Amino acid sequence: LFTRIDHVAVVCADLDSVSRHYQRRYGFQPHHEESNASQGIRESVLRLPGDETGAYLQLLQPTRADSTVSRWLARRGPGLHHVAFATPDVDAAAARIARAGARLLFDPPRPASMGSRATFLHPGDSHGVLVELVT
Amino acid sequence: LFTRIDHVAVVCADLDSVSRHYQRRYGFQPHHEESNASQGIRESVLRLPGDETGAYLQLLQPTRADSTVSRWLARRGPGLHHVAFATPDVDAAAARIARAGARLLFDPPRPASMGSRATFLHPGDSHGVLVELVT
Repeated sequence: LFTRIDHVAVVCADLDSVSRHYQRRYGFQPHHEESNASQGIRESVLRLPGDETGAYLQLLQPTRADSTVSRWLARRGPGLHHVAFATPDVDAAAARIARAGARLLFDPPRPASMGSRATFLHPGDSHGVLVELVT
Repeated sequence: LFTRIDHVAVVCADLDSVSRHYQRRYGFQPHHEESNASQGIRESVLRLPGDETGAYLQLLQPTRADSTVSRWLARRGPGLHHVAFATPDVDAAAARIARAGARLLFDPPRPASMGSRATFLHPGDSHGVLVELVT
């Protein structure tokens, strides 16, 4: 049902500065940038040149104080935020996991990064890890 | 210098139970298991069937109370622990990053998962993210 690690997300207070850090230190290249008003985030997608795995690093910055990402940043500080697993059918995968008792943060899945659709599983049902399911 | 995301690591108190969770929910398959006495951890490598990207999920369980992973778990609870970036030459990459002012947790790099060599960068120099460099 799941095919690969789609991306790893990092939350920060200053996306532009953290993006430059990943570019300078590791050679990541900015691939895409967008804002998601409903989630209250600005995000930047970084890739390593020549990396053909498809996996990317996602930087997230909250754009308003009442967003869930903003509360996460206030509570835990900057750092790793979530890991996303790719599935060919996020609706079916989310429904199956919900039937097994896990809470979905978006039900149904919502528009997400770069035209994808995604939902998240509550970390309390996932051994402390915020997991995104994405198609 | 860096080629791809090598793995994402999750820290937990009960590796066997969390491994079963990832197997049942997402279809991960156990690929490798080992203990690292110097780091005070037991680890399990999980892969998604058919995933040819090479990226994997690493589960970590502390094996003694005075290990850094044990202190992490006590302070922050279970969840995402670090992200690893692959490089063809971890010694050169680590030296270059150290010259730019970042602290290395292992200098020189040490034996790590599945015959690799690796070091870690202090999260305080990396916007809150514990980053592993691995060859």
